[in-house]
Amino acid sequence: MHNRFDGTTFVTTLKVRDSECDAQGVVNNANYLVYMEYARHEFLEAQGVTFADLVRDQVYLMVAHLEIDFVNSLSGGQVFDVESTVSRKGAKAIFDQRIVRVSDKAVCIRARVEVIAKINGKLTRGEFFDRFMPK
Amino acid sequence: MHNRFDGTTFVTTLKVRDSECDAQGVVNNANYLVYMEYARHEFLEAQGVTFADLVRDQVYLMVAHLEIDFVNSLSGGQVFDVESTVSRKGAKAIFDQRIVRVSDKAVCIRARVEVIAKINGKLTRGEFFDRFMPK
Amino acid sequence: MHNRFDGTTFVTTLKVRDSECDAQGVVNNANYLVYMEYARHEFLEAQGVTFADLVRDQVYLMVAHLEIDFVNSLSGGQVFDVESTVSRKGAKAIFDQRIVRVSDKAVCIRARVEVIAKINGKLTRGEFFDRFMPK
Amino acid sequence: MHNRFDGTTFVTTLKVRDSECDAQGVVNNANYLVYMEYARHEFLEAQGVTFADLVRDQVYLMVAHLEIDFVNSLSGGQVFDVESTVSRKGAKAIFDQRIVRVSDKAVCIRARVEVIAKINGKLTRGEFFDRFMPK
Repeated sequence: MHNRFDGTTFVTTLKVRDSECDAQGVVNNANYLVYMEYARHEFLEAQGVTFADLVRDQVYLMVAHLEIDFVNSLSGGQVFDVESTVSRKGAKAIFDQRIVRVSDKAVCIRARVEVIAKINGKLTRGEFFDRFMPK
Repeated sequence: MHNRFDGTTFVTTLKVRDSECDAQGVVNNANYLVYMEYARHEFLEAQGVTFADLVRDQVYLMVAHLEIDFVNSLSGGQVFDVESTVSRKGAKAIFDQRIVRVSDKAVCIRARVEVIAKINGKLTRGEFFDRFMPK
Repeated sequence: MHNRFDGTTFVTTLKVRDSECDAQGVVNNANYLVYMEYARHEFLEAQGVTFADLVRDQVYLMVAHLEIDFVNSLSGGQVFDVESTVSRKGAKAIFDQRIVRVSDKAVCIRARVEVIAKINGKLTRGEFFDRFMPK
Repeated sequence: MHNRFDGTTFVTTLKVRDSECDAQGVVNNANYLVYMEYARHEFLEAQGVTFADLVRDQVYLMVAHLEIDFVNSLSGGQVFDVESTVSRKGAKAIFDQRIVRVSDKAVCIRARVEVIAKINGKLTRGEFFDRFMPK
């Protein structure tokens, strides 16, 4: 709902739920992966493909490798942008994702997410990703 | 961000994340509590009180009792409204909450959530809730 | 793994993960539903039926109604028992579930969970549950 | 509860909850971080330090960087070991963690997790970690 796309970077705006924070009062690490996956799925949906469609068609997108820097912490109620750009590298789609707090533009997360596509359980060469690449 | 308030009912609009669904392809039950808590916190915040402030001040709002009907299931990507109204009953704030799918207006969840306030670990008589009650 | 069954009450022992607590330092409400669902699935599995089997066979067990008292809070690292008993009422299986902290036997949660079974999308009369009822 | 330590590798055994799986029927990526954090906290606790103690004392352990290979997927009900070894590198504690399915010894996750310690909001040189290092 809160997405914008300038042709290169897809931006999804979200707000931290208090239930996503732990006793330290900041977002638990695992939830940043939730945010980034949500943003990738919004990116797909903006291009006409839903995750539910993919599951039904037995096209399974799976993260194969992930590197992530936790730079600053988000806390309850803060609004943030997930910025995503995508490129292709062999069988993989590479999502470069950043999470930026809206109030002060602080970069909270920098991540590189490598995604593969399996169809009926078989690793594909990534042709599936072609249609999502920037023109 | 996506809230509206007509003076009686506070409405928070959200979208199901695919990670909130389980192998049945629908939202796992526990996540409806997450949605409803988020809506209650948005309601508080709209009136100038954040959950983080409350924790800092050792005012702990806690659900004491919950009844919930699961009427229809939401699935990945669906947009829904959490409708919340609040009233006071003794020491408790009573939130009547419904979750309604936006596309077809199907009621998915009907719940009654009884919340108490503890300050420095002691149960209060609920004076805290007065300022949030509809005038 | 940590289950025991005396013929009437099925007991599942778990430990709170710190990531399940929120900024108040106690388990977020929604997670109690996660614990209770896990215990119900362990109960099924102990009788030879896995959730994955059910999904594959399009037998969908769904919570229709839930009432829950939050009596005491659990916090990070605490060990607790989920005690479950089951009975049949028409089309529903009724699970009475309690969550009890092991260290001091404090009752934390008392819940009544009404479960229905749908097969290929159709509500059943609950025959499915017969085999799980105490003899 | 299910931990063992051979002096070098700390092993925590867990079982996948169905609620941790998504519509693909496998564990959602974010939950592997939950498992690994839980194992690290169990490791600390086995050495006499709980996360709750640390929060109270304003010692905040935070993941600064994480690299993770998703090699095989876990699905509902599967039992797995989280294997953790720790070493020190400057201000960081480095946890090398693997998740291995018990039934067939398949490696599911390989990760390197870099943790820093902040005390009263200030980055430490990591002296805190010394007592946890293998002798």
